[in-house]
Amino acid sequence: VSSAASEPALIGLDWGTTSLRVYLIGSDGQVLDHRESREGILQVPGGDFAGTLAARLADRWRGDLPIVASGMITSRNGWIETPYVDLPAGGAELAAGLVRHAIPGGPVVHFVPGLATEHDGVPDVMRGEETEIVGAVAGGFGDGLYVMPGTHSKWVMVRDRKLTAYATFMTGEIFAALKDHTILGRLMHDADIFQDDAFARGVEASRTSGTEVLHRLFSVRTLPLFGRLAPEEASDFMSGLLYGAEIAAGQARFEAGSGATVVGSRELSARVRRALELCGIEAQIAPADCAARGLFEIAAAAGLVGRHA
Amino acid sequence: VSSAASEPALIGLDWGTTSLRVYLIGSDGQVLDHRESREGILQVPGGDFAGTLAARLADRWRGDLPIVASGMITSRNGWIETPYVDLPAGGAELAAGLVRHAIPGGPVVHFVPGLATEHDGVPDVMRGEETEIVGAVAGGFGDGLYVMPGTHSKWVMVRDRKLTAYATFMTGEIFAALKDHTILGRLMHDADIFQDDAFARGVEASRTSGTEVLHRLFSVRTLPLFGRLAPEEASDFMSGLLYGAEIAAGQARFEAGSGATVVGSRELSARVRRALELCGIEAQIAPADCAARGLFEIAAAAGLVGRHA
Repeated sequence: VSSAASEPALIGLDWGTTSLRVYLIGSDGQVLDHRESREGILQVPGGDFAGTLAARLADRWRGDLPIVASGMITSRNGWIETPYVDLPAGGAELAAGLVRHAIPGGPVVHFVPGLATEHDGVPDVMRGEETEIVGAVAGGFGDGLYVMPGTHSKWVMVRDRKLTAYATFMTGEIFAALKDHTILGRLMHDADIFQDDAFARGVEASRTSGTEVLHRLFSVRTLPLFGRLAPEEASDFMSGLLYGAEIAAGQARFEAGSGATVVGSRELSARVRRALELCGIEAQIAPADCAARGLFEIAAAAGLVGRHA
Repeated sequence: VSSAASEPALIGLDWGTTSLRVYLIGSDGQVLDHRESREGILQVPGGDFAGTLAARLADRWRGDLPIVASGMITSRNGWIETPYVDLPAGGAELAAGLVRHAIPGGPVVHFVPGLATEHDGVPDVMRGEETEIVGAVAGGFGDGLYVMPGTHSKWVMVRDRKLTAYATFMTGEIFAALKDHTILGRLMHDADIFQDDAFARGVEASRTSGTEVLHRLFSVRTLPLFGRLAPEEASDFMSGLLYGAEIAAGQARFEAGSGATVVGSRELSARVRRALELCGIEAQIAPADCAARGLFEIAAAAGLVGRHA
C-alpha cells in the first residue's frame, strides 16, 4: 500500500476456475490491496457464490463501492451467465455488455460479458482474458499480438485498442493429460530447475513440423530409450514440443511480426517468452495485475467510477 | 478347425501389453487353434512369464513344437529384451535376429527382435507390428502402405516385401487421455452406435489444418456450447479430428498414393478405413491373424519349420 494511495473506488473480482482474486482499486486505477484464495468456481461449496463473496468482503472493504467481476464466474458453471459480445471489442464494448446482478440484501455486482468469435469453422470463446487484455492495453502495452499461456492458452490480436481476433490452444491441459495419464509421463523424473536446453530442443523440433505433433510426441518416449534425453529433461522437452506446435500454428494464423506481449502467471510467462524467442518473436511480459486494471477500465467506461488521477 | 488341417508345426505367441494370443500353427502356415487371454505383459503377476506360458500350454499343445514370440514381451518391461534390427527388414532379417531362450526344464522360445529407425531427429521403435506386416505381406497384401491403428498407431511402408520406413503416431493414447482427463470428455455422452457424420466432420476439419490440432481440439468444447455438435457426437468428432491430423502427417511423410492396407482390430480398422477414404485413400482390411502368419514366416525363414503345403 503506497503512502500516496488514492481513495478506494472499486472492488474488482477476477474469479476463475481455480482461484478468486479480490482487488481494492483506487480512483486512479491503482491496486490498493488484494486478496487471493483457492475459491475458484468449481471449489465453492454448493455454488454459494454470494456467501463466498460476503465472507471475502466482511471487514473494512465492505461499503458502497461498485463491484465488477470477470472470469469463468460468468460462464454456465459460474454464478451469472453473461451473453457473448462480438469482435472487435474493447473497454467500451465490454462496459456496454455488463450484466447487473443485485444480491438480495447485499451489493450489486456487474458481470463482464464473454467474447465469442469463429474462424474456419471453429467457434472460440473467452471469459476473463479479455479483461486482462484491456488492462494491459491501458497499462501501456497498446496494440499488437498478445500471448496468454495457461490451461487454455490464448493468442490475441489488438488493433485500435480493441481485441480483433483470438484463438485458443489447449496446450496446458494437453500437457497435463499427457504427463499424468500416458506412457510419456512414466519416463519422467521431475527436475529441480527448468531444463532450458531440453525445452529449447523441444521447441526447435516441433516448430517446423507442426503437422506431426502426434508423431513428434512419441520421441518423448524414444529419446530416453536410446539415452538421448535424460528422465529429468523429458518434461521440459515435452513442454517445448507443445509450445513449438502452438507457436507454429499461432504464427501462421496471426501473421505475427517480431514482437508480442505475454500476459500470464510468472512461471508460464517466462516459459512462453523463451519459446517465442526461439521462434524469432521478442516478447515483453505484462505485470501480474492486468485483470485489476482491466476491471477498472471497464468500470470507468460504464461510468461506475470517475476517471481521474 | 478344418477337416483338411495340416500337422501342427509351430506355436506362435503374440504377447503384447494387454493380451496374450497363443496360436497353434500348421505346417502350411494355417492357424489350427488359438487362445486369447488378458495376460498382457503388465498383467502377469510377478513377471512370471514362464509360469504363465506353461499354464497356457499345459495340455495337448505340449510337445516338441518350436515356439516363436513377438510383441512387447521382447521389450525392457517384458521377458527377454531383444536387440533392434535396422531397416529394411523382412522375414529373413527378423529370422536372423531371433533370440533363443531355453526355459529351465522347459521348451525353447525364440523371440523376434525389435525394429528401430530414425527420421528427422525422432527415433522410432516397433515390437510386434513388424511380425503382423510380414504376415500381411505373405498373406497376399504385398508391397505398399500399411496403416495400423491402435494406442500407438504405425504407418509402415513396404518395398520388395521388406519394411523400409515407418512412423508412430500417439493417436489412440492421446484420444483416451483427452477423453478421460480433460474438459473435452466432460461434455461427451457415449453413443450407442458409431456417429459417422460427426466422425467425418472431424476428419474434414483437421486433415487440412494439421498444424492447428492444439487449437482445433478446442472445438470439441465450443461446438456443443453453441448447439452445433450433440453430446453423443463429440467423442467420434474428436476421434475424427485426431485421425485427420494423423493422416495429414502420414500422407506428407510417406507420399502416400491412393491405396493402403489396414492391419488392426476390427473396430479400429473400420474407423481408420473410413478416415482414409475421406482423405482420398482406398484401404483394404487385412485379416485378424496376421501375427500368426508372420510368426510362421519368420520361423520358416529361420529353418524352425519346413515350408510345405
